[in-house]
Amino acid sequence: MLRYLTAGESHGRCLMAILEGMPAGLKVDEEIINRDLRRRQTAFGRGPRMAMEYDTVQVLSGLRKGATIGSPIALMIENKDASIDSLPVITSPRPGHADLAGVIKYDSNDIRDILERASARETAIRVALGGVCKILLDEFDIEILSHVVELGGIKADIKGLSYKEIKSKVLKSPLNCANKQAEKAMVKKIESASKNGNTLGGICEIIAVGIPIGLGSYVHSDRRLDARIAGTLMSIQAIKGVEIGLGFKAAALLGSKVHDEIVFDKRKGFSRRTNAAGGLEGGVTNGQPLVVRIAMKPIATLGKPLASVDIKTKRKLKAQVERHDICAVAAAGIVGEAVLAFELANAMREKFGGDSLSEMKRNYAGYIKQVRSF
Amino acid sequence: MLRYLTAGESHGRCLMAILEGMPAGLKVDEEIINRDLRRRQTAFGRGPRMAMEYDTVQVLSGLRKGATIGSPIALMIENKDASIDSLPVITSPRPGHADLAGVIKYDSNDIRDILERASARETAIRVALGGVCKILLDEFDIEILSHVVELGGIKADIKGLSYKEIKSKVLKSPLNCANKQAEKAMVKKIESASKNGNTLGGICEIIAVGIPIGLGSYVHSDRRLDARIAGTLMSIQAIKGVEIGLGFKAAALLGSKVHDEIVFDKRKGFSRRTNAAGGLEGGVTNGQPLVVRIAMKPIATLGKPLASVDIKTKRKLKAQVERHDICAVAAAGIVGEAVLAFELANAMREKFGGDSLSEMKRNYAGYIKQVRSF
Amino acid sequence: MLRYLTAGESHGRCLMAILEGMPAGLKVDEEIINRDLRRRQTAFGRGPRMAMEYDTVQVLSGLRKGATIGSPIALMIENKDASIDSLPVITSPRPGHADLAGVIKYDSNDIRDILERASARETAIRVALGGVCKILLDEFDIEILSHVVELGGIKADIKGLSYKEIKSKVLKSPLNCANKQAEKAMVKKIESASKNGNTLGGICEIIAVGIPIGLGSYVHSDRRLDARIAGTLMSIQAIKGVEIGLGFKAAALLGSKVHDEIVFDKRKGFSRRTNAAGGLEGGVTNGQPLVVRIAMKPIATLGKPLASVDIKTKRKLKAQVERHDICAVAAAGIVGEAVLAFELANAMREKFGGDSLSEMKRNYAGYIKQVRSF
Amino acid sequence: MLRYLTAGESHGRCLMAILEGMPAGLKVDEEIINRDLRRRQTAFGRGPRMAMEYDTVQVLSGLRKGATIGSPIALMIENKDASIDSLPVITSPRPGHADLAGVIKYDSNDIRDILERASARETAIRVALGGVCKILLDEFDIEILSHVVELGGIKADIKGLSYKEIKSKVLKSPLNCANKQAEKAMVKKIESASKNGNTLGGICEIIAVGIPIGLGSYVHSDRRLDARIAGTLMSIQAIKGVEIGLGFKAAALLGSKVHDEIVFDKRKGFSRRTNAAGGLEGGVTNGQPLVVRIAMKPIATLGKPLASVDIKTKRKLKAQVERHDICAVAAAGIVGEAVLAFELANAMREKFGGDSLSEMKRNYAGYIKQVRSF
Repeated sequence: MLRYLTAGESHGRCLMAILEGMPAGLKVDEEIINRDLRRRQTAFGRGPRMAMEYDTVQVLSGLRKGATIGSPIALMIENKDASIDSLPVITSPRPGHADLAGVIKYDSNDIRDILERASARETAIRVALGGVCKILLDEFDIEILSHVVELGGIKADIKGLSYKEIKSKVLKSPLNCANKQAEKAMVKKIESASKNGNTLGGICEIIAVGIPIGLGSYVHSDRRLDARIAGTLMSIQAIKGVEIGLGFKAAALLGSKVHDEIVFDKRKGFSRRTNAAGGLEGGVTNGQPLVVRIAMKPIATLGKPLASVDIKTKRKLKAQVERHDICAVAAAGIVGEAVLAFELANAMREKFGGDSLSEMKRNYAGYIKQVRSF
Repeated sequence: MLRYLTAGESHGRCLMAILEGMPAGLKVDEEIINRDLRRRQTAFGRGPRMAMEYDTVQVLSGLRKGATIGSPIALMIENKDASIDSLPVITSPRPGHADLAGVIKYDSNDIRDILERASARETAIRVALGGVCKILLDEFDIEILSHVVELGGIKADIKGLSYKEIKSKVLKSPLNCANKQAEKAMVKKIESASKNGNTLGGICEIIAVGIPIGLGSYVHSDRRLDARIAGTLMSIQAIKGVEIGLGFKAAALLGSKVHDEIVFDKRKGFSRRTNAAGGLEGGVTNGQPLVVRIAMKPIATLGKPLASVDIKTKRKLKAQVERHDICAVAAAGIVGEAVLAFELANAMREKFGGDSLSEMKRNYAGYIKQVRSF
Repeated sequence: MLRYLTAGESHGRCLMAILEGMPAGLKVDEEIINRDLRRRQTAFGRGPRMAMEYDTVQVLSGLRKGATIGSPIALMIENKDASIDSLPVITSPRPGHADLAGVIKYDSNDIRDILERASARETAIRVALGGVCKILLDEFDIEILSHVVELGGIKADIKGLSYKEIKSKVLKSPLNCANKQAEKAMVKKIESASKNGNTLGGICEIIAVGIPIGLGSYVHSDRRLDARIAGTLMSIQAIKGVEIGLGFKAAALLGSKVHDEIVFDKRKGFSRRTNAAGGLEGGVTNGQPLVVRIAMKPIATLGKPLASVDIKTKRKLKAQVERHDICAVAAAGIVGEAVLAFELANAMREKFGGDSLSEMKRNYAGYIKQVRSF
Repeated sequence: MLRYLTAGESHGRCLMAILEGMPAGLKVDEEIINRDLRRRQTAFGRGPRMAMEYDTVQVLSGLRKGATIGSPIALMIENKDASIDSLPVITSPRPGHADLAGVIKYDSNDIRDILERASARETAIRVALGGVCKILLDEFDIEILSHVVELGGIKADIKGLSYKEIKSKVLKSPLNCANKQAEKAMVKKIESASKNGNTLGGICEIIAVGIPIGLGSYVHSDRRLDARIAGTLMSIQAIKGVEIGLGFKAAALLGSKVHDEIVFDKRKGFSRRTNAAGGLEGGVTNGQPLVVRIAMKPIATLGKPLASVDIKTKRKLKAQVERHDICAVAAAGIVGEAVLAFELANAMREKFGGDSLSEMKRNYAGYIKQVRSF
């Protein structure tokens, strides 16, 4: 079992996480984690805060001489601005945020108490956590990548592109988009929204390749990998929809057009020619690439704020304007990679057990041999 | 904390569940649970199995004189056909099912070992579990209803209908659909698919009303109610997409068109004129109706089976044809109600605690008073 | 991860359990489980109820053709007397029971609502659960046995006896005691207590042999196997103390007299000449037999009842006299075996993973080879 | 639900913890936490390391203006010596430690990888966690105190002393002992063991007062408060026994001598004249003081080391001598207070729910009124 807790506020001293359950003997290069932290911060559309501070992770525990020793891994990202105690009281809740429900729930009279933790700033530490998980997955040749497939209504056509091609295009793109033409239109759309005090959302696709057959299970509802993935992706701030494979499109098609016929090849074993299922059947990985999509609503903090009500005076006013992004879809994709990495790493830990990386790999190798000779 | 485990196979003796964590003093009328079991079974589009057997729940423990006493509640639904041990070996996996991944994962040479538990038959016991949760929620005037909004590509327009109107239409509909015209077209579509050995999917909307502000939380990723709801809905067999409020549509709109402006009224307190958020902001309920949608892929067992490969001989053949539904979208909605009921009941238990219903209600009343005087 | 829930009342229809997380391919012989159920019931000192009914387990799900298929295992023990709804109201709480705290906590005016679930009758289903776990452990040559080492103050000297010798003596003993002379005195003590309307407690030792080095962990408090074992043993009704290895005696000795010196032998690897640690160092198994002891207080229901107070009238009276045992120490040991079996099976599942027994065994074999070549 | 994770090694940068689930609005004074950290460090018998460094806690998150805001609380204790990466390889395992089982389990060739996390240094952060929990409990007038009742075989008689008297004596005692004469003998015993390169263990009693009737439950094995307490206490390094109330002594007595007769008084309600149960009946608090005892084995690192075997060469040698305590019984008691504080705080959170302290207190007050009018 792999598990974690996170802590930290946007203007507190730091963001923190403890990740428990990693095997011993895994080399952890902090630079790999920092790479994802930078990808999350530098996508086009992020706000001014992002420019001034580059997040870097510190691994405070769990490593010795650069490798895990089985003990919990504590991660820290320091905040550049730790003014939480001196920031002024906010009484004007923003529609689309936890602001109003939060102050009522926690019986507070200062919305600052809410937004400090509810803010998507928290996702930075989840990206760091996911970074450690990716390092484990990499030992088993599992790779995860996200890319923007829709932004402000503009769709990026990627039909016919292989995973490798998507990857090569995305890594060069400021918007994490595999279609250059679409990207140009998206950038314009963001610039226009910015000028008008407005914000944008979009859709990301997250792909994981190299996953063995048989992660997750149908034997109990909470063991289904589709359920776990949907839950963790929906936990990302501002995500309002999750779909796997064809997703919502599958609802309109005939069965004969949806299910991936099974083929067999002596060399490669069982396989499929299509991947409408997105790599998951019955909550279990089927050896095809895992393909999920998340829909992000537009950023809730607007330059031209929406109508709201003062929580103290109950008078009408405009919602609070905080420093904000115009569009964070590309960043949400990076966060999606991270939380998916955790779920996959957890599923790998459950299936293959082991206290050291060498033991886990030995168990994995035995299973792969079993699969091949099935 | 409310929790459950389920057990049971399609052709085993019974389906079972244990629900742990309900307060003492709740009257449980089995007939209320049976009503949902019947709704799940009798929707148009279900297969022949459904006609012959009506599921009824037996509460084996946890009640005394018809009311809970704090101890775990064991539920059982007996299967009419308990031939699991004598059913013949199946070696032809169905695309779209857990069949192939399942036999490889569990190292079995008989697909029957897999489908007996992977089958959606299991959802009957989840409906029973949800029924008990609904009885608790009813004590707090929380109500849940699902209806079919799309089937085989045909959309049911419900614009302008209130919750009450939807409810009154749905309860009279054989397809759980609030638009009579659309329903007619859907029925035809199902009949046509049936004739052609094909199957259909669709989209259900699930609405919960009466939920207090402040269930769920943004303070930790796994406390977000949106995450929990998405996870549990995706755990329903054949569901490939989940969205909340505007969902995927929100991704294409400007921020100014998405967020629900806040208004205040001395009598009603804080409110919204729109509900694009579907009742959840920052993973917390905001007092508006909870609105979620699930996309179901077409049934994977086809009358005209798809191409497959024998797991023993590795020869090409057609997939196994089991007794099957043509379209189970309406039933999936009922299951969606049930699993949502569990998550809401759990969130209510977490927030209001209490060992007896009277204690829980007292705590709830205190909070409602706090909310009103906020 | 292995987990379970139980349900059921003493005079309800049945006791139930669902065990989730067992690998596929394990043959489950119900007779092995029934053997432990009988051992629990027939020990000398049990009350009249025990004579009239022999518990037998029914496996309602999770098996096909006698073997596990990976799905949850539902167990049921039917009660002979299911009169729960018609039994009269009880208002006189018994000292030493949950009676008084229970009615206050659950806001009930009938102690029957409490004792139906709080009673040790519930342990029967835990014995059944443990029975399934023992069947798994047996595949790895892990064996568990309990025996009475003290009863009503009489100690059973077992110095110098090997595990095999204890086992052979215990299986012939009506009191689960390895010292015949002590046993005779214990029987007399029970007979005398019975005549005088009194009850007795005692101490059981539970031994598990064949456990590999490295179950449990010190890396997090809740992964320590000593913690898990102490928790589960203390959860048995009427247990007031748990100790491992020398236990409380270790507190009075010098360090040089307590710790088990390490020796090495080319054939057997690392070993110890003593076992003061009881097989656990730092919360991790060290390859020596696991030795734990539990202290049971005397049965709380007395023939000559203690002073109490009517919960309705608040008048002094004598505590309720229910059908009861005089001494259930031997039975508690059997329950101890069962709950320990669950914890060991869970620790084995965590370390070795695997979805099928063959996969789990392959992983185990790889680790044993690793240990031997360490 | 209250939960935590800890991280950190003895010679890493710091010890860390994240505590999740505390209500908003609780004032947290770090000095109260530091007081327990000092009590843990300064008890007579601790080693030289302790003299040079006073642990102080830093609350990195979860507070704003000194009070909780509902978000997770991150705690850090910095290590003075963070040389973990440069410390030399250790190949000589100490009997009584996780050393040998640890290197085998985690497939390491350096015992340093094991002892860095297995060491009782880790308990400092659990004391800090418990400190936060104590601050919550204090709001409900629940207080916890430990004292040494036996050390190296010398018993401290406290018969007839009230909780207040024990407290006043213990707070002045360098050994956390309520009997001055016994304490003198204990100090001598420690000095003598120190001279002889030996170590000592002992027994602590932990008392909690002010607990309402009805925490914990008998309805499921893992809800029993006795089970949770026994588990958490046994998770403290070097603890080999746990008992509640009369504990092991109860096993030798007649039922009529053990159970606490019930009395009623119009002003005080239901009560008991004795407390043999130690405040727990059926796993539920009964309103009496909670009394538990833990047995600690002598420190495993000896000045005159025991026989061991080099893990690399397999040659006989003496066990590694690390900087160590002679006797840490008093410190173990402080840790016991802390872990007990967590379990009680968790049980209070479960029963009374609430997101803010004011809500939790309102729910609590309602229940207390219910209890009084029962």
